[in-house]
Amino acid sequence: MPMIETFIAENEDRFLEELKQFLRIPSIGALPQHSEDMVRCAQFAVDSLLSAGMHRVEAMPTGGAPVVYAEWLGAPGAPTVLVYGHYDVQPVDPLDLWTTPPFDPQVRDGELYARGAADDKGQLFMHVKSAEAHIQVNGRVPVNLKFLLEGEEEIGSTHLDAFLAANRDLLAADFVVVSDTGWFDRGVPSLCYGLRGLAYLQVDLKGANSDLHSGSFGGAVANPTQVLAGMIAALKDERGHITVPGFYDRVRPLAPEERLRFASLPFDDARYRRDLGVPTLWGEEGYTTLERTWARPTLDVNGIWGGFTGEGSKTVLPARASAKISCRLVPDQDPDEILDLLEARLRELVPPTVAMSVQRLGAGKPVITPLDHPAVQAASRAVERAFQKPVAFVRSGGSIPIVASFQERLGIPTVLMGMSLPDDHAHAPDERFPLENFFGGIRASAYLWEELARG
Amino acid sequence: MPMIETFIAENEDRFLEELKQFLRIPSIGALPQHSEDMVRCAQFAVDSLLSAGMHRVEAMPTGGAPVVYAEWLGAPGAPTVLVYGHYDVQPVDPLDLWTTPPFDPQVRDGELYARGAADDKGQLFMHVKSAEAHIQVNGRVPVNLKFLLEGEEEIGSTHLDAFLAANRDLLAADFVVVSDTGWFDRGVPSLCYGLRGLAYLQVDLKGANSDLHSGSFGGAVANPTQVLAGMIAALKDERGHITVPGFYDRVRPLAPEERLRFASLPFDDARYRRDLGVPTLWGEEGYTTLERTWARPTLDVNGIWGGFTGEGSKTVLPARASAKISCRLVPDQDPDEILDLLEARLRELVPPTVAMSVQRLGAGKPVITPLDHPAVQAASRAVERAFQKPVAFVRSGGSIPIVASFQERLGIPTVLMGMSLPDDHAHAPDERFPLENFFGGIRASAYLWEELARG
Repeated sequence: MPMIETFIAENEDRFLEELKQFLRIPSIGALPQHSEDMVRCAQFAVDSLLSAGMHRVEAMPTGGAPVVYAEWLGAPGAPTVLVYGHYDVQPVDPLDLWTTPPFDPQVRDGELYARGAADDKGQLFMHVKSAEAHIQVNGRVPVNLKFLLEGEEEIGSTHLDAFLAANRDLLAADFVVVSDTGWFDRGVPSLCYGLRGLAYLQVDLKGANSDLHSGSFGGAVANPTQVLAGMIAALKDERGHITVPGFYDRVRPLAPEERLRFASLPFDDARYRRDLGVPTLWGEEGYTTLERTWARPTLDVNGIWGGFTGEGSKTVLPARASAKISCRLVPDQDPDEILDLLEARLRELVPPTVAMSVQRLGAGKPVITPLDHPAVQAASRAVERAFQKPVAFVRSGGSIPIVASFQERLGIPTVLMGMSLPDDHAHAPDERFPLENFFGGIRASAYLWEELARG
Repeated sequence: MPMIETFIAENEDRFLEELKQFLRIPSIGALPQHSEDMVRCAQFAVDSLLSAGMHRVEAMPTGGAPVVYAEWLGAPGAPTVLVYGHYDVQPVDPLDLWTTPPFDPQVRDGELYARGAADDKGQLFMHVKSAEAHIQVNGRVPVNLKFLLEGEEEIGSTHLDAFLAANRDLLAADFVVVSDTGWFDRGVPSLCYGLRGLAYLQVDLKGANSDLHSGSFGGAVANPTQVLAGMIAALKDERGHITVPGFYDRVRPLAPEERLRFASLPFDDARYRRDLGVPTLWGEEGYTTLERTWARPTLDVNGIWGGFTGEGSKTVLPARASAKISCRLVPDQDPDEILDLLEARLRELVPPTVAMSVQRLGAGKPVITPLDHPAVQAASRAVERAFQKPVAFVRSGGSIPIVASFQERLGIPTVLMGMSLPDDHAHAPDERFPLENFFGGIRASAYLWEELARG
């Protein structure tokens, strides 16, 4: 491995420059006006994989953004690994809270700032570069390698399930490696064995045919924004418990040993609160912060709007009000069942004074990977070699719905080897990724192919 | 009067064209980007008053949009009338619900469509044109006439109180005439003797320093949008009663004879519901629709926003949430006291999980004018002559804070001689004003000067 390590060390500047090019493409999958950027971004990934020395590289059409596929299958007898990542990114608003523009990547204090730096362009790029290192130095990779890079992860991987079903043979592998999760903390390399699922919907209420003068009509008709506020308020009680009937029925209780393991991690509520800038933490009664975010389900309003939202004081009685509401789910909750329960509860809550429509915008299953799986063990050794520190086994509050699909549909377990940090501002302004983790991640990925080949 | 009537009839086309020019100026006082339009619009009013033959016409500076003043004082011994109107208009969003652009006035089926057609450019213009008719035909007006046209009515008449205080002598008059209210219904000419007041504030909640990933952090911190929803929901009970302590303390109970008068008006809940397009009417228990909108106070959310409001499914835990909340007030509620009570209630409701700031955006007192005042009686005769129908005496749910200022600060009673209709869509898309009421209103105004001179 020394030659590979040298290759990586000598090419750090180039790797960073190439990643910056990748990050300059505003591949926001949620916004239709960026559809051409999705295609440009897929093409960039294709070019990167080609120049890394991968074979059969292509951008494959889906009903939405293309999937980028690549393979290197020159290690007969060795395991086959499928690397999954996504080149789409979250929207960037509120834009005025970014220190520098989201698609103008800049390094400050050893951190690379850009939308997608951590989630997930920076992380998938580590594996592209580790493949390049093996192929350039040794002419081969110790395992059979396949890449599957999608462009719809942030909008619910709309077309990936169908793509998986249609390309079972092409994607056949022994396990999947995903770097789209994070470390427990700066300086605490981690492997993630659990992800929360997601159930996301939008509710739209309509009262009058058009906005009304709040003086002339105020008092005579229900106000959709207030009706919506009442419905949202009724979804949680004052102890942080979600009041949707049946919501908790399938929630796997936390085992005492897991609670102990969580409690042994170096976590400080006071620092966490300070980092977030909230006046105080708040969540479901009877659970710690780590339990609340890793192993308990949530219900959050992701957005709400209705009526006049500009400057000044327009005296309008709004005709419409809307909210985006999503739940993070834990094993063994089922997202479709939760969407059914939530929608049923909303239909129960909505008064006859407004018309309601509900639109489902996303669903992903929660995931747990066994800690004793050989691939998890190999990843653990690879990360320890790269960062010279013991690995912490953690869960994540986030959702990668496709990981559930790999487990359920293709029968492939997933190793979650993420390198981002809790304060990387994923999905928020000033998203960033430490260069140390980017370069260390390339080494860890290079070691991983080696460790997996050893078995 | 026949010559004046002939003059008005022969100039209808020109009056309409001039009004359209007035309406083409997008004088949205609430939006800073329209500040130059405010000045242009004031200049248009100046030019109109000059060509009507008024004297001492000028746009007078305030801290905000200018006030337009004009006078004609050639009737010694006759009463002096101050005509008040406003040339500023409401914002126009949602723009996509307008059949034709808001600042491109068009006549369809005898209705003039444009922002400001009814509220208030079309109505104030009636008085400008009636003055013109008297001066052009007779060389004089039967009363002493003063015009006071402001540009900040829709944003709470911010600078008008100070202007009144600084110009008491200039504005001295026996009564004020305001045409900024409406008829009870099409074909039912009305005089309005009561207006509701207004108390308007904005509440802003802040949780984390920036929007958070709803997966990584969901469950651990309060969501400001949900906190806000809970606070808003707590401001009203299920019977439509406002739960702010002390809110109803000064509300004047409805007298039995007034309830009877309201009940005798030709009003149909079913038609009202159908016209508005709401699934069902809803309001304070124990009151009719007219009582709810004319004589009972309200609390309405005028706008609410927070988090991701675009297309798609951004999984964000919003850092902030805001709402604009306003109350319509009835005698003898005091807007400042109500703002105090409402703010106190919000401070009581807000949990320690978020930081709250409250911003007061407007306050106006409710008004009642005695029905037996000579000016009200003169207006009643003028309107009956112009439309050849008996006048209905009504109240309005809207607020014209300046009317309270005229009564309280200058000691001048106000005659509310409005010509708009309930379905004129004031403050909403497709605002309109019937040409019949515009031209009839010019005649009524011309008769009013005559009736007032008779005493």
